[in-house]
Amino acid sequence: MRGVVMYGPGDVRVEEREVPRLVEPTDAILRVVASCICGSDLWPWRGLDAVGSPSPMGHEYVGVVESVGADVRSVKPGDFVVGSFFASDNTCEICAAGYQTHCVRREPGAATGGQAEYLRVPLADGTLVATPGMPDADLVPSLLAASDVLGTGWFAAVAAEAGPGKTVAVVGDGAVGLLGVLAAKQLGAKRIIAMSRHADRQALAREFGATDIVTERGDEGVAKIKELTGGLGAHSTIEAVGTQESMMQAIRATRAGGHVGYVGVSHDVSLPGLELFFSGVHLHGGPAPVRRFLPELIDLIWTRRIDPGRVFDLTLPLEEAADGYRAMDERRAIKVLLRP
Amino acid sequence: MRGVVMYGPGDVRVEEREVPRLVEPTDAILRVVASCICGSDLWPWRGLDAVGSPSPMGHEYVGVVESVGADVRSVKPGDFVVGSFFASDNTCEICAAGYQTHCVRREPGAATGGQAEYLRVPLADGTLVATPGMPDADLVPSLLAASDVLGTGWFAAVAAEAGPGKTVAVVGDGAVGLLGVLAAKQLGAKRIIAMSRHADRQALAREFGATDIVTERGDEGVAKIKELTGGLGAHSTIEAVGTQESMMQAIRATRAGGHVGYVGVSHDVSLPGLELFFSGVHLHGGPAPVRRFLPELIDLIWTRRIDPGRVFDLTLPLEEAADGYRAMDERRAIKVLLRP
Repeated sequence: MRGVVMYGPGDVRVEEREVPRLVEPTDAILRVVASCICGSDLWPWRGLDAVGSPSPMGHEYVGVVESVGADVRSVKPGDFVVGSFFASDNTCEICAAGYQTHCVRREPGAATGGQAEYLRVPLADGTLVATPGMPDADLVPSLLAASDVLGTGWFAAVAAEAGPGKTVAVVGDGAVGLLGVLAAKQLGAKRIIAMSRHADRQALAREFGATDIVTERGDEGVAKIKELTGGLGAHSTIEAVGTQESMMQAIRATRAGGHVGYVGVSHDVSLPGLELFFSGVHLHGGPAPVRRFLPELIDLIWTRRIDPGRVFDLTLPLEEAADGYRAMDERRAIKVLLRP
Repeated sequence: MRGVVMYGPGDVRVEEREVPRLVEPTDAILRVVASCICGSDLWPWRGLDAVGSPSPMGHEYVGVVESVGADVRSVKPGDFVVGSFFASDNTCEICAAGYQTHCVRREPGAATGGQAEYLRVPLADGTLVATPGMPDADLVPSLLAASDVLGTGWFAAVAAEAGPGKTVAVVGDGAVGLLGVLAAKQLGAKRIIAMSRHADRQALAREFGATDIVTERGDEGVAKIKELTGGLGAHSTIEAVGTQESMMQAIRATRAGGHVGYVGVSHDVSLPGLELFFSGVHLHGGPAPVRRFLPELIDLIWTRRIDPGRVFDLTLPLEEAADGYRAMDERRAIKVLLRP
């Protein structure tokens, strides 16, 4: 089969790889219908995260079940399924509390790499969720979004306690930030302030429910949020970047007693204790437990109440994956969908 | 009148000072019945926080109202009142959300220093709470505790979401940590693990509701908490120290999805972003909005359902305040009550 492998910074190749096989009785093999490139895939591509030996890429995926191990009960061959980037048993105490990305048995969900024709998923019962039937083609991008960027933006909004009456600020206008806007809207937020300086992303943010756009960054951005909130700051802030600047911007943009939901994977972030102490904010985040939200998100998509697939503004055949990495790196595309 | 003034590290004097007078129409003047020395007073005493010009000390107090400004409605001369270390209007949007220590009009609650015979309290209506009548003498220490250490320990337990079915770990065996144990018990926690290596404090922790004592610190302490919780960590952890070690101990002792409530004033603390991200914990804390809890805490004390005054293991006349600072610094006393 064909699959994407990263050899080093800027060096992504599509090559012939072995078709994955069942290893554990809890595994499933999927024929991948769609996969995509994640913002986090750009960190090693840019040389900011180490790449070890050649790495199969991709952790966001939807597909059709080809075969399942002897112990798998909840999905069967022929099912269209959505998965998540961490595999979880969905039965342990941590999973039961809704933190499947921290499952005591967790392991990579796309064990053999999602940017490929076929994929092995461990702990299939606890990781995969089947859709009610075969989806219409136009629903596939949205279902794919659910497997990471939507689930992550949704978790950020929940962690930030976005809800009725709340003013929500969103730091980061990538796919996760934009879907954080969508999530905040669905959760009933009264006002949603998207921080973005790109016209195309501003437009999508507005489409997803943003009521205000702030183009300033850093301290100026914080001052603008304060100005829009009677000097107090947002009730809820979604952080979807993962840098020192974005984290501090999120904390400072939030009122005392408010909530920061952070999902940008932290890179060289160090939070000053005394400032955090006197900020009085709640801080919660980390790798999103997408599995917690999948049933609800699939339902919202299936019934066409949300259209998160709008974040995919470039679709490429799997063979052209390298072009997709470049397009995202150069910000020519918000998010690239790959079709095997 | 007599009052405590800090001149520099290790240099605390009781001297003649001017009796405070009403300045604003929202002020109240109290005759202080009892005050005490706070763990945070030891930072400047030890030279770890700067002392500017000679500083009147003390921010924990109970007393009888002597006089009130023209705009004060909720307390009157003769009332016995409990206050808090920050004055708040208790009407702004931040106060209404329960974060009175971040009130848009906040200022020091014991404006002229609580370790004195008389005290001026600003924003009296929003800061002071009157007891149902003159308290019996044996209730005074507990009411005094409510003004800071109990209110702070309570907030930490609430921020850590201590509650029924939860296992709560407590880092720090000072008065705040011990009262965090008491709070967790009152909030219904199933299991309370106090981290302490001092026999007297362990005994008080058990009296307040601790079910387990862990004497190990740092990584060993974390390992012990994990061992006691099936490898997962506590659901809720109270951090009541404020150092890098104690914060990391609290974060690492908490399971993913669990809650850390931190109230130790952070000194040279810097939280590593990536570790925090992958910990999956909730983090909330800061200066405790004691005012939020005062009515409930006064009721619990008045009806003798809790006895937080037990943390005062040394009572001194105000004139001997310097001895009190030394006793706390040398850990000969958990908490020192001063009687003018």
